[in-house]
Amino acid sequence: MKIKLIAIGKTQGDWLINGIGDYKNRLKHYTNYECIEIPDIKNRANLTVDKLKEMEQVEIEKYLDKDSFIIALDENGKEYTSENFSNYIEKKMTFETKSIIFIIGGAFGISKAILERCNDKIALSKMTFSHQMVRLVFTEQLYRAFTILKNEKYHHK
Amino acid sequence: MKIKLIAIGKTQGDWLINGIGDYKNRLKHYTNYECIEIPDIKNRANLTVDKLKEMEQVEIEKYLDKDSFIIALDENGKEYTSENFSNYIEKKMTFETKSIIFIIGGAFGISKAILERCNDKIALSKMTFSHQMVRLVFTEQLYRAFTILKNEKYHHK
Repeated sequence: MKIKLIAIGKTQGDWLINGIGDYKNRLKHYTNYECIEIPDIKNRANLTVDKLKEMEQVEIEKYLDKDSFIIALDENGKEYTSENFSNYIEKKMTFETKSIIFIIGGAFGISKAILERCNDKIALSKMTFSHQMVRLVFTEQLYRAFTILKNEKYHHK
Repeated sequence: MKIKLIAIGKTQGDWLINGIGDYKNRLKHYTNYECIEIPDIKNRANLTVDKLKEMEQVEIEKYLDKDSFIIALDENGKEYTSENFSNYIEKKMTFETKSIIFIIGGAFGISKAILERCNDKIALSKMTFSHQMVRLVFTEQLYRAFTILKNEKYHHK
């Protein structure tokens, strides 16, 4: 089974790179996980938000395939507890797909067309996290999900 | 106005210390913010969870005073959007108190007695974050709250 995260822009700041790297390393023991960082669109300060999202959309679409189950990480998505998120991942992987793609949009979110193409939308919180911070929170939750599935000590309830 | 965060145990891992430090520095421009890390209880591996929470409670209580508005950061608390959390902080500070204390429990959460003493409970997410990660997510949200109040560019809606 394969899980891919697609994010817009390089992860910025050593602490964020190291934190994400920490959970990414731990994830290796559980699944084939890959994080793709699409380079920021050039001259984006001169673009309208809609134009920027449209250009980001073109780049994201290059990584989408019809065999994967595609999930947008989006504030308006459904919220899960960590246990339910863990069950969700397990069910998808067991019965529905061999590959899940999660998408984190740019600073202004994900284009409408991509949102419509996604099979599901999940929110990590009602609160807005920066598109950089979402990567860290998501990677930790994915790691937590696998430790819950394996009944390991990391997650306390 | 004064905002204090009380957490159990030293923050562990350079990336987490640096990330929290980053938002703490930014917060200086907006409010008097302090983070108190209560040392981990010794020999805690040999204690029952209830006993550990009770001992943590004694340490936390040393920092509580009756003039502060005390908020537990707890999974079972109320969820806010970042905008609503920002309004919440503003209202509390304008009309109700000069000092807010937020509490993050230890690895097993906050004791019942402390939860009952708190004036309110807020959840950063339905998902479980480690008590270490909560510090980072909280500090970023508090910083975000002030940038929203000041109508600054950090928060995109």
